Amino acid sequence: MSGPIGVFDSGMGGLTVLRALRERLPGEDLVYFGDTARVPYGTKGERTVRRFALEDASFLLSLGVKMVVVACNTASAFALEHLRAELPVPVLGVIEPGVAAAVTRTRGGPVGVIATAGTIASRRYQRLLAARLGGERVLARACPLLVPLVEEGMIDHPVTRQVLAEYLAPLREAGVDTLILGCTHYPLLRERIAAFMGPGTVLVDSADTLADTARAELQRLGLARPAGGRPGELAFYLSDVPWRFAEVAERFLGHPIGEVRTVNVNELAAPAAAARRKDAP
Amino acid sequence: MSGPIGVFDSGMGGLTVLRALRERLPGEDLVYFGDTARVPYGTKGERTVRRFALEDASFLLSLGVKMVVVACNTASAFALEHLRAELPVPVLGVIEPGVAAAVTRTRGGPVGVIATAGTIASRRYQRLLAARLGGERVLARACPLLVPLVEEGMIDHPVTRQVLAEYLAPLREAGVDTLILGCTHYPLLRERIAAFMGPGTVLVDSADTLADTARAELQRLGLARPAGGRPGELAFYLSDVPWRFAEVAERFLGHPIGEVRTVNVNELAAPAAAARRKDAP
Repeated sequence: MSGPIGVFDSGMGGLTVLRALRERLPGEDLVYFGDTARVPYGTKGERTVRRFALEDASFLLSLGVKMVVVACNTASAFALEHLRAELPVPVLGVIEPGVAAAVTRTRGGPVGVIATAGTIASRRYQRLLAARLGGERVLARACPLLVPLVEEGMIDHPVTRQVLAEYLAPLREAGVDTLILGCTHYPLLRERIAAFMGPGTVLVDSADTLADTARAELQRLGLARPAGGRPGELAFYLSDVPWRFAEVAERFLGHPIGEVRTVNVNELAAPAAAARRKDAP
Repeated sequence: MSGPIGVFDSGMGGLTVLRALRERLPGEDLVYFGDTARVPYGTKGERTVRRFALEDASFLLSLGVKMVVVACNTASAFALEHLRAELPVPVLGVIEPGVAAAVTRTRGGPVGVIATAGTIASRRYQRLLAARLGGERVLARACPLLVPLVEEGMIDHPVTRQVLAEYLAPLREAGVDTLILGCTHYPLLRERIAAFMGPGTVLVDSADTLADTARAELQRLGLARPAGGRPGELAFYLSDVPWRFAEVAERFLGHPIGEVRTVNVNELAAPAAAARRKDAP
């Protein structure tokens, strides 16, 4: 199958997922769409996030993708079922792989999840974890300041350490043995979070598990590109080119991002209406 | 003239401007639109902000407003000229009134401005101030973390004090005698900023000056409602109802917000196209 895998996120955090996919699936073409004009999703309401997610995925479909990966936790929390019902291709989110990895790794203690306000309010992590472990073993915590701190590049800053200490103290006190990093921005803070939580806590970043799931799904469905072909290509689309964009992108991707095309979010907004307009006299 | 005054902002920060307008113009009807589905604007690029601003203003026009107030500094920085060229009603922004107030109040020392990354990058404050005072008296500083800190309600938090100290130290060291709060979120931090800068620095919040300008403009154009009539009414529209919305709104407005209508941002997105669709067979 020659189509690319489409990956979307509310902004640039999903580049951490793209990076994992590229490492695991070096022969696959990848197309990334970051909805930087409407970022963040984590503070917004369920209906809005669901609508945006459907528009983002529809844009990727218009590029001929064979699979859609929802790299954004908030969009996975609110829109995954909806996307699966609406789209003609397989859809993977980041929450289920993160939960599966946490359930495998816990040693019987409490399991924690940190994420945006929206993801925590959706209760999707909590419900999936409780179904496997029992609700009394699940602790969730919204960490709304971590996204802006990471985007500002304040990874090793004393302010970030102070904010982390405040968010994570109740999880450390509860003796959490496994902590899910439930937002694609958080892996950039992995070392700081590990230092605060101590060696007794395993950190789960769903990007790697998601990439493994994607590989298995492509094989199972006969959609994988044969091994030994040319290296996969990367294409980037964003709905806005934000200030200091290249610097932020490189932080997430691990290397310079290369050429980026921009998409007018208005054209995303109503693909059906746009098609109708084309047909109109 | 019976039409309301329309006020728009990227989110809820503009409610500080609405509050000032209401105090100065108690007899005028006011309509507020907060583009909470696409907030923030301050991190986004010029073309995107200009397009969003035009859509927001067009929505207000569709409600019959007699004047448009751009309560968002970033939108004022990037889109004011454009809106004035495109709209059939008077358009006021927050930057010119802020600059005018600062120029009046400075005692000959350096004048500082703090704002979002976008507003500072636009150089609009800096250019307007330099034209009046000379460039060597102007100091500008982007403060990207202040918006999320205010939205989290961390007004008196040690983290906020630490972040403010870092942003403001160079301005204090330079002996700034007047400091423009160039973002509608910052008046909520006024006390903390004043405490750090000390009594030698006058803080300028453009909301009050803007409200005075709006009153003068309405009088001058014969658009003011006659004094002594019924009290003005307030109507609120948002493009998303975010998490903990009522709490954040009350923080900015100073009292509970009352009924809010939501607007689908897709319908905003292309008013012209939407009108065309209605006409299509």
